[in-house]
Amino acid sequence: MIPRYTRPVMAAIWAPANRYRIWFEIEALAAEAMSLFGDVPPESARVIREKGDAALAAFSDADLARIDEIEAETRHDVIAFLTWLAEKIGPDSRFVHLGMTSSDVLDTCLAVQLAQASDLLLEDLDAVLAALKRRAFEHKHTLTIGRSHAIHAEPTSFGLKLAGHYAEFARNRERLVAARAEIATCAISGAVGTFAHVDPRAEEFVAERLGLQAEPVSTQVIPRDRHAAFFCTLAVIASGIERLAVEVRHLQRSEVREAEEFFHPGQKGSSAMPHKRNPVLSENLTGLARLVRSHAVPALENVALWHERDISHSSVERNIGPDATIGLDFALSRLAGMMEKLVVYPAQMLANLEGLGGVVHSGEVLLELARQGVSREDAYRIVQRNAMATWTNLASPEGRSFRENLDADPEIAGRVSAEALDRATDASRHLRALDTSFVRVFGEAGPAAP
Amino acid sequence: MIPRYTRPVMAAIWAPANRYRIWFEIEALAAEAMSLFGDVPPESARVIREKGDAALAAFSDADLARIDEIEAETRHDVIAFLTWLAEKIGPDSRFVHLGMTSSDVLDTCLAVQLAQASDLLLEDLDAVLAALKRRAFEHKHTLTIGRSHAIHAEPTSFGLKLAGHYAEFARNRERLVAARAEIATCAISGAVGTFAHVDPRAEEFVAERLGLQAEPVSTQVIPRDRHAAFFCTLAVIASGIERLAVEVRHLQRSEVREAEEFFHPGQKGSSAMPHKRNPVLSENLTGLARLVRSHAVPALENVALWHERDISHSSVERNIGPDATIGLDFALSRLAGMMEKLVVYPAQMLANLEGLGGVVHSGEVLLELARQGVSREDAYRIVQRNAMATWTNLASPEGRSFRENLDADPEIAGRVSAEALDRATDASRHLRALDTSFVRVFGEAGPAAP
Amino acid sequence: MIPRYTRPVMAAIWAPANRYRIWFEIEALAAEAMSLFGDVPPESARVIREKGDAALAAFSDADLARIDEIEAETRHDVIAFLTWLAEKIGPDSRFVHLGMTSSDVLDTCLAVQLAQASDLLLEDLDAVLAALKRRAFEHKHTLTIGRSHAIHAEPTSFGLKLAGHYAEFARNRERLVAARAEIATCAISGAVGTFAHVDPRAEEFVAERLGLQAEPVSTQVIPRDRHAAFFCTLAVIASGIERLAVEVRHLQRSEVREAEEFFHPGQKGSSAMPHKRNPVLSENLTGLARLVRSHAVPALENVALWHERDISHSSVERNIGPDATIGLDFALSRLAGMMEKLVVYPAQMLANLEGLGGVVHSGEVLLELARQGVSREDAYRIVQRNAMATWTNLASPEGRSFRENLDADPEIAGRVSAEALDRATDASRHLRALDTSFVRVFGEAGPAAP
Amino acid sequence: MIPRYTRPVMAAIWAPANRYRIWFEIEALAAEAMSLFGDVPPESARVIREKGDAALAAFSDADLARIDEIEAETRHDVIAFLTWLAEKIGPDSRFVHLGMTSSDVLDTCLAVQLAQASDLLLEDLDAVLAALKRRAFEHKHTLTIGRSHAIHAEPTSFGLKLAGHYAEFARNRERLVAARAEIATCAISGAVGTFAHVDPRAEEFVAERLGLQAEPVSTQVIPRDRHAAFFCTLAVIASGIERLAVEVRHLQRSEVREAEEFFHPGQKGSSAMPHKRNPVLSENLTGLARLVRSHAVPALENVALWHERDISHSSVERNIGPDATIGLDFALSRLAGMMEKLVVYPAQMLANLEGLGGVVHSGEVLLELARQGVSREDAYRIVQRNAMATWTNLASPEGRSFRENLDADPEIAGRVSAEALDRATDASRHLRALDTSFVRVFGEAGPAAP
Repeated sequence: MIPRYTRPVMAAIWAPANRYRIWFEIEALAAEAMSLFGDVPPESARVIREKGDAALAAFSDADLARIDEIEAETRHDVIAFLTWLAEKIGPDSRFVHLGMTSSDVLDTCLAVQLAQASDLLLEDLDAVLAALKRRAFEHKHTLTIGRSHAIHAEPTSFGLKLAGHYAEFARNRERLVAARAEIATCAISGAVGTFAHVDPRAEEFVAERLGLQAEPVSTQVIPRDRHAAFFCTLAVIASGIERLAVEVRHLQRSEVREAEEFFHPGQKGSSAMPHKRNPVLSENLTGLARLVRSHAVPALENVALWHERDISHSSVERNIGPDATIGLDFALSRLAGMMEKLVVYPAQMLANLEGLGGVVHSGEVLLELARQGVSREDAYRIVQRNAMATWTNLASPEGRSFRENLDADPEIAGRVSAEALDRATDASRHLRALDTSFVRVFGEAGPAAP
Repeated sequence: MIPRYTRPVMAAIWAPANRYRIWFEIEALAAEAMSLFGDVPPESARVIREKGDAALAAFSDADLARIDEIEAETRHDVIAFLTWLAEKIGPDSRFVHLGMTSSDVLDTCLAVQLAQASDLLLEDLDAVLAALKRRAFEHKHTLTIGRSHAIHAEPTSFGLKLAGHYAEFARNRERLVAARAEIATCAISGAVGTFAHVDPRAEEFVAERLGLQAEPVSTQVIPRDRHAAFFCTLAVIASGIERLAVEVRHLQRSEVREAEEFFHPGQKGSSAMPHKRNPVLSENLTGLARLVRSHAVPALENVALWHERDISHSSVERNIGPDATIGLDFALSRLAGMMEKLVVYPAQMLANLEGLGGVVHSGEVLLELARQGVSREDAYRIVQRNAMATWTNLASPEGRSFRENLDADPEIAGRVSAEALDRATDASRHLRALDTSFVRVFGEAGPAAP
Repeated sequence: MIPRYTRPVMAAIWAPANRYRIWFEIEALAAEAMSLFGDVPPESARVIREKGDAALAAFSDADLARIDEIEAETRHDVIAFLTWLAEKIGPDSRFVHLGMTSSDVLDTCLAVQLAQASDLLLEDLDAVLAALKRRAFEHKHTLTIGRSHAIHAEPTSFGLKLAGHYAEFARNRERLVAARAEIATCAISGAVGTFAHVDPRAEEFVAERLGLQAEPVSTQVIPRDRHAAFFCTLAVIASGIERLAVEVRHLQRSEVREAEEFFHPGQKGSSAMPHKRNPVLSENLTGLARLVRSHAVPALENVALWHERDISHSSVERNIGPDATIGLDFALSRLAGMMEKLVVYPAQMLANLEGLGGVVHSGEVLLELARQGVSREDAYRIVQRNAMATWTNLASPEGRSFRENLDADPEIAGRVSAEALDRATDASRHLRALDTSFVRVFGEAGPAAP
Repeated sequence: MIPRYTRPVMAAIWAPANRYRIWFEIEALAAEAMSLFGDVPPESARVIREKGDAALAAFSDADLARIDEIEAETRHDVIAFLTWLAEKIGPDSRFVHLGMTSSDVLDTCLAVQLAQASDLLLEDLDAVLAALKRRAFEHKHTLTIGRSHAIHAEPTSFGLKLAGHYAEFARNRERLVAARAEIATCAISGAVGTFAHVDPRAEEFVAERLGLQAEPVSTQVIPRDRHAAFFCTLAVIASGIERLAVEVRHLQRSEVREAEEFFHPGQKGSSAMPHKRNPVLSENLTGLARLVRSHAVPALENVALWHERDISHSSVERNIGPDATIGLDFALSRLAGMMEKLVVYPAQMLANLEGLGGVVHSGEVLLELARQGVSREDAYRIVQRNAMATWTNLASPEGRSFRENLDADPEIAGRVSAEALDRATDASRHLRALDTSFVRVFGEAGPAAP
């Protein structure tokens, strides 16, 4: 992921320093475990831990360069690291990595990194949830038009719209918790997972210390269905970001103007057109969602490794591991800020709601006719006729509102009273179940109607 | 999905008869619920239930044709169904669909269908799990070579390989249970989800009767992140099928021949080459996995519907709903049968294991040298030299086995005893942790060593 | 592809009758070719042709059932067909399929089917192009607002917008012509493409008669990069459909209403809201685009077949072959009709264009200031200030138009004359290059300004 | 793309220095063009060119930092660059970017970068083609077994296998040439593509100087179907890499060992198993292919921008532009080297070919029986029986070869002469059409049989 869309806090998880720190931790813990079961002299385990801790604490660019130098010859990254580590530790280093295979280190490290990344993403999601809840409560009673097919449907509240997004992000949070649990496993099981040269208790020891589960059966590697499920989960979350971003883009369009991204003083919307204030954050989020989503396919293709493993997954994960988590972290963080600062225009919402002359109340009038015994077919015909007449002549000077048309229709007049029409065309009826919905989503009803 | 890859039991879930049956059930339950809360006369709810039940029970091609005829005019499938239903029910039909929107019916129906499909898929997974467990136990102690990079690595057991696949399918089962819960929600909330014309208790009533949860906030529709997560889960399962299928394809290749798909009497492998017995089932499963996986992307693209909904998701789901579930059902069912009948050749497994002259024991020899105080670097160099010499001259008449080369190497001779080399090159050491792995996967150790 | 989105003319290409007709044609042509080169007795080739033609001409459901019956035993579709054919032809049938392999028939047939499908799709594209050209000429001078980021940018013409889509579909047509050429190849080369049992001239003979090219090197199969490129091309075309569909959806939204899909008499937009007229065709096209696009990934995954072939591609192609071509044919056909009948509202376009008080002319005013020697930085600041003031107070009673604000701004007044401001805020300047653009796209300028 | 898979030569194309150089070139050329048509004073155009050239020639990190600083305030990258440029050029800078919009610069620059990248990729492809041709000629007559379904089918030559891959890469080269032409267009057309403030001749001038075509109709942007087609083409090429990589991985597997990647002195295959020589390059290429392929989906999703443009494509392209081209460049370069150095084992190929006791000649024996008047059905049954008997008893001491079984079968003996069986089981017949195939692919037959 390019720096433009990278937050340092997530990038640090994927930096070499963190990776080598985790690699060492795995090796040191494994040696400590083996010292308990007799495979490694306790004194050697202690030396490994102490000298290794010191080397990692002092880790510098020179160490990086030295490891790279060794890798250039051996063409094997773990061997390069172990060789460097041996230089730091001395003779006791022969008890490092004992009976282990590279993937024991690599896959367990990836598990730790993905768990760290998940924790950060969970914080991001919490920030999004907090912003959505605050704005949902703020606008619980803000009337706005609900739209299906981008056509005015019936009134709703802007807070309820946000509550729906909150509910989706709450689901996304649950999914990420589950996905984190999926990938948080540890393998210290040797070349093909048989524990031929390592005690299974060492695996359990390392796993427990790292906050992971022991992988029930690793082959040479931790099976990649776990990672596929993880990246698919990120893709689902990204799609939720897109849904909210698209909503904001629609709301900001010139003809709607019900909400706007915050526009910074000094900001320029366009090099050529000084009047522009564009929803560039939400558009950017839409693109980032495409990127994060795109990583699901190669992650799925990674599952079917050959036999006990092939290494085709590696180049994929070296890229999508950082890219997907960094991209999603940036996007969630941007989204939270954007929603916190979103400028909302309730007056414009109301103006738009009323902009179609009241036809948005056609559904309730239809029901009222049904209540008066008119067949569904006839009622539909009558209401549709009046709604279309209203809409077609909206811009015309002699255009009449929906209510005026209804009042003038003899098929209505004889059946529905003025009071009933008043009730049917009162937008507030669409807010009456808000408490129910809010309780379902937030566990509390939120602010009472003003 | 084409008939070739369709099992009737899954196809029936997606047939019009089942859909209309569910639609009616939703409408009838909704009317019953509303009769409890005063919106529908109880007598009307009873008439709707009775006459509707009778109409659906007698549902014939003529009814299908009538609905199609109405839809050709109204261009709306739910209205067409309701009009047909009204013809069957009579005047009380005006209390059908009261205050509801089409998506209340469509989305709740889709939830029921996906839940039904999930139940079938769970049965399929159980059959796969049963077959894998039986064969894993059968071959718990069958020695075979483990391979990484398709290169012989170290010995393992064929049963352990199958146990690994079992563990993956057990995870897939858990994932599907979670995904089923995700999509099993009900919406009876009206045009934009505000319950403007319908009591939220009606939604809860219908949900409970159908075995669903009430959707916390539906817009006009049940939010599509649920479906995206569901189809992603199917994609992950499909990838697990692919992994096992690819394994079988490898095992059956002419040079390996460790296992073979069952070949039916009368079966012909090739129109031109009568000698052929091809792994066509596992190849077919590989292709089906690609198909099922391909549905994840459009499902993810469906999430970002506009405002309270647009209908772009509909054409996607009308296809991938059946295609993904039918394809996966067929694939899992085929996989279960294939694994049940897989012909396994333990003798060939052993022959292959021994085919590289014993170099597959290089790892343990390396460790033995380390135990004798040789540095990792030196030990690696010594063992690699002997292994490469063995391998390079495998086909040569004067080629020596790995053990013979080790015995002749002065750097080994002075350090490692013959007994230690015996132990290091004994394949059975790779089976010693089988019980641990089996208990982890199956909760029981399975058969003892023979 | 479900019947709902299937046109019979494309479905017929994928029907068994057409497939068996093509299979026979390949076999008959191959026998005829071989009779020229001495491998088949000419009289046998004649009998094969005559009896086979007769059998195919009389092909009935009974034949289908017979072939299915044989396949149930042999588990091989081509052998089943050949056995049925032998029953029809008699002893000369032993010269059918001589030295050929099943894939020679299957892959060459697929090439013919995809070529036939392409021809139909090219007709579809021509219909789309014709509709777009007609409407582009009709609305060449219809002023409308151009939008970037869904924010009003500068005026353009609705005809020019359509011309851009025309240009894209013209590119798509070229791409399809190229893709058609890619997949129109023939393989009659035997089990692994070595012509071990068949003369290469037979391949050339059959290819020429079928309007195909001989495949330079087939393995057992025609290489799948050709098909991957083909399905990717369909995906690109589908994305072009989506772009136009999304445009229409935007134009029809309630607050914009610049264009509308034709609404049939009797059509019902919503079961619950009689006032609705929804852009359901373009939303449907958006979904179909996702479907067609989704086939690109499995087609790409099909490329890396093992060695001379594995059959994993087959189940994929049995589905995506029909699905992608039928889906795209339906979508293009629907798109052509939709664009032909699109209801356009020029008055509303003009009203929207003027709806922001003239700020859409900010760019030209900026340039005018630059021409008067004001630095870019200063000019930007001045114009932005006036534009924002206009926009912010649009709905206010004392709100002023952009021009009024400019006139009142001392930093403008001293520098730009009223005449220059008249010119700068005249929308017609945005139409002055229409002829250039139209000539580029259509090869002709189209109608002159009215 | 991470540095591990990045070649500096491709990375340089995407570096800021190159981007700013191109941006300036576009601006300078536009100013020069406008000076020809009267919109810019010739002297100003000259100053812009001279001072700008000087500034870019001296471009340093300080300039980068200054641009970043301005962007931090304006939140607009092009404006930041133009402001920096103005600081370098002075008052004449007000004639820079005159009547243009940011996308004129951005999109034209992207076209130049993608064209540059394409040129590099074409060189890469040429290197792959050269390696494949050399090795194909080298091994034109090297007998090897052809495999379908990974089961021995019939003999072929290793050179012919490589020729098939050559043919695919030759097609990929043609596709890339076409894709390069697709994206090499220039837009200098203003805010919504109407040339409202810029002469269309300026666009043609800039296009011609940059080696591009003028875009027939740009909206605000160059339409993204061009880019989608481009990235799809890269995906198809990547899939071709995967096909060849998978072939090498199969050939190197322990039981096949027909070819091996070059193993460097000092290289270590495994940290735990010193005997390992793994096909890590081809496995890596498999993974890189997945990555490059994954960029096709977001590129396709980028097509349907809203109205005259939204900026959602931007974040996608900022990533996949470099990632896809850098990844593919690295992969092709690696592939060329790998194929140049591939170690081929003809003796092992022959041993494998003969490993199944001669059953691979079943097809020709089948044909011979047919020539003797045996029906296809009977002939198949006879040959299948003997082939299966041979194969089943391969490892048995009393196992007989296919020929021995045929000789002992009374249904064969009476019909096919020993000489005919000799001919039928002679592997060299599978090489007889090599010249034809080579001429088709390479335009020349290559070396004669030794």
